[in-house]
Amino acid sequence: MFSGALRRQFPPTIRQLLSSPGASARIEVNGWIKSVRRQKNVAFAVINDGSCSQGLQAVFKPERLPYDATNGASIRLVGHLVDSPGRGQAKEFQVDEAEVVGACDPETYPIQKQALSTEYLRDQCHLRSRVDKMGTVLRTRHTLLHAFHQYFNSQGFTYAHTPIITSNDCEGGGETFSVVSQHSPPHSRGLLSEDDPSKKQPEMFFDKPAFLTVSSQLHLEALAAANSRVYTLSPCFRAERSQTNRHLAEFHMLEAEWAFTKSIEDVCVTVEDAIKAAASAASAAEDLDVNVLQLQKPWPRISYTDAIRELESHHSSPSSTFKFSPTWGSSLQSEHEKWLATSLGSPVFVTDYSSSLKPFYMRLNDDEKTVACFDLLIPGLGELVGGSLREERLPYLDAALDKHGLDKAEYSWYADLRRFGGTPHGGFGLGFERLVSCITGVENVRECIPMPRWAGRMLL
Amino acid sequence: MFSGALRRQFPPTIRQLLSSPGASARIEVNGWIKSVRRQKNVAFAVINDGSCSQGLQAVFKPERLPYDATNGASIRLVGHLVDSPGRGQAKEFQVDEAEVVGACDPETYPIQKQALSTEYLRDQCHLRSRVDKMGTVLRTRHTLLHAFHQYFNSQGFTYAHTPIITSNDCEGGGETFSVVSQHSPPHSRGLLSEDDPSKKQPEMFFDKPAFLTVSSQLHLEALAAANSRVYTLSPCFRAERSQTNRHLAEFHMLEAEWAFTKSIEDVCVTVEDAIKAAASAASAAEDLDVNVLQLQKPWPRISYTDAIRELESHHSSPSSTFKFSPTWGSSLQSEHEKWLATSLGSPVFVTDYSSSLKPFYMRLNDDEKTVACFDLLIPGLGELVGGSLREERLPYLDAALDKHGLDKAEYSWYADLRRFGGTPHGGFGLGFERLVSCITGVENVRECIPMPRWAGRMLL
Repeated sequence: MFSGALRRQFPPTIRQLLSSPGASARIEVNGWIKSVRRQKNVAFAVINDGSCSQGLQAVFKPERLPYDATNGASIRLVGHLVDSPGRGQAKEFQVDEAEVVGACDPETYPIQKQALSTEYLRDQCHLRSRVDKMGTVLRTRHTLLHAFHQYFNSQGFTYAHTPIITSNDCEGGGETFSVVSQHSPPHSRGLLSEDDPSKKQPEMFFDKPAFLTVSSQLHLEALAAANSRVYTLSPCFRAERSQTNRHLAEFHMLEAEWAFTKSIEDVCVTVEDAIKAAASAASAAEDLDVNVLQLQKPWPRISYTDAIRELESHHSSPSSTFKFSPTWGSSLQSEHEKWLATSLGSPVFVTDYSSSLKPFYMRLNDDEKTVACFDLLIPGLGELVGGSLREERLPYLDAALDKHGLDKAEYSWYADLRRFGGTPHGGFGLGFERLVSCITGVENVRECIPMPRWAGRMLL
Repeated sequence: MFSGALRRQFPPTIRQLLSSPGASARIEVNGWIKSVRRQKNVAFAVINDGSCSQGLQAVFKPERLPYDATNGASIRLVGHLVDSPGRGQAKEFQVDEAEVVGACDPETYPIQKQALSTEYLRDQCHLRSRVDKMGTVLRTRHTLLHAFHQYFNSQGFTYAHTPIITSNDCEGGGETFSVVSQHSPPHSRGLLSEDDPSKKQPEMFFDKPAFLTVSSQLHLEALAAANSRVYTLSPCFRAERSQTNRHLAEFHMLEAEWAFTKSIEDVCVTVEDAIKAAASAASAAEDLDVNVLQLQKPWPRISYTDAIRELESHHSSPSSTFKFSPTWGSSLQSEHEKWLATSLGSPVFVTDYSSSLKPFYMRLNDDEKTVACFDLLIPGLGELVGGSLREERLPYLDAALDKHGLDKAEYSWYADLRRFGGTPHGGFGLGFERLVSCITGVENVRECIPMPRWAGRMLL
């Protein structure tokens, strides 16, 4: 067996350096200059390598600070980390040698020190990760991802890569992207040839029309029918044209699916545990205020039916500002979701919606009017997670496919999962960028992903 | 802060159960029946939940084994795990209660016990993870992924989600998929409207033609220009029509990119360390033979120039079976790669190829004929990893763009990464399914991913 000894260690990042105790040996540090201050007898520069928000306070004899050490330049320093006599940082780096690695023209550098508008930074997508806030977002994504891996791994789940290109449209929403091969002729671009059948057209790339996935759920269900517990954090796609601060054309969903569960409460508790563990890790890593998530308290549950009753009662009071009447059987409007979460001052699971509001695959409750499902609502944000038990009873599934006008032949593989050793099972999908938004306080999901795509916009 | 206490623990998987010491308390186990054997005084069944390859040996009083406990059925057992007196397993599960959760008709069950052909199982994609070999593949992917996360996290890297939908074609190969919105009219499906300009066509979904990514490298370079060290394991896509056992239309690449490195040897050592750590973890988890990777030994390096010399020398001997003459300036053919790796009996890094054979972004060596790059070749498999230093010197980059006939305006953002605090940097891309193939011994990459896609084929 391999001994496990690494042949190379990367030099410590600034984060690793600052968190190690005591003074350091003579070491090399690389990064980008965030600010420079020259005084008569001493010069200071803050250097960041993207590993933490605060950066490293570097102290120079003025003659050792290179003339071209300007904001944005990359720099190599050699010196010692010592306790700092100055205020504002515990440690500072005393520089013996400094060399500008890549200069940066202060006149034309797109990331100037003054406050830059969100819109401007979107245009500078390739450089905007140098802005503190965007650095925090990138690291928070990493910390959340690792915490989720840790959580699900410890609970016996297997990570699965589910397909991006798919023939099915899980939500039935229709706002999907098609995938076509550039070498196909125009009329076979992922669609059946409609005209001129006399002209022999080359085949489609695949054997049927191909779409970008909107959810990994159905694929995870197939894997959970063999592996019991699976999860993924997959890109998902919606050709959504509305411009909101909660929607992207390309986003990420944490989805988990497991066999042998019979209660929606099981799914709610798992979601609550996983988010609390991940949010806790992320807020500790970057010193973020995640008060909105109320990590200390159990999150309340309320049934859709009770929620409608509460909303109706509020709506009949003079203080109601609802535009839409809450009615059993109708969707909760944004304003309703907002009111529920805000009045409770906590994330809240709304469970057991009317079956008419939900997709075909959700398990019908004994009342035959509601399905075993939930939406997790967050104050100020709205829906963060949706989950359900999945209908494992074939006759009920068939009836649901009929009711939703779906083709049973298309879903025969899905029915097979019930036909051959089926299990009661359930799972959930969490909008990863929305969670990043909650945790970092960055309101628009376009800033919660390094390179956002939305209708009309795709840079790089 | 959140205390970190979980409110719910999932019951142990069969793997967790078998690896815990001693006898267990009375517990519940769920899984699928792999085989059943009824005798007069005792009955046996092997139960698997997908968490390990061996499964759980369950022992029943014959009357406690349900009549419909047949292969493929899902079953709930309650009992105790005890040391096994029988051969073939260290522990067995003594069953007090058993209940078939989901029956499975033995006549029509697609996963019969006799050997099933690879082709047949591809058609049963939704159920094939129940086959032992596919279960091993799924778990090995998980173990490799976790080991890579552990390695890169410990070295100060940040995981980054790079875009799937992109406007650039990193390799310039042209075999890319286009992404179009279904709501766009036929002539604006991601392409510029070519005819009938009088008819006002709705806009494209994005502001330019959109493709599925073939590599995350250029995006990672942008992030490494702020975060120093980044990696990803991303889906990648090639509209490759050739049918080989090494190519998929949708595959995964582990890609890492880091700033402040000046030597290709740095990149090679990192690749060697990361693969050895991951392969070691994966082979331990599933007891796999990874001898082909020679984990104990340092992997040799040979320059392209020296490799050509060796190949020429072999080719001039009577024992040569090469179809193609090895020539400096020409690509290494598969037969050449195979001979190099096989004759060394080890993975081998071939470095510093002729610049004419490699993409525009690789850093020109001082000889001005070769570039600072490598391919890692594996005996019997061929290329597993490709990596390079990236050209950070603007004049050289401009010259390379010209030489490759690429539009400088398209790459102005990429040039900006050099213009404003550029750094010497490098990275690599590893074909994840090829690594899974190496480690599991499963030859065709179509079996190294749960739901494969290739020209003419996309199930689910």
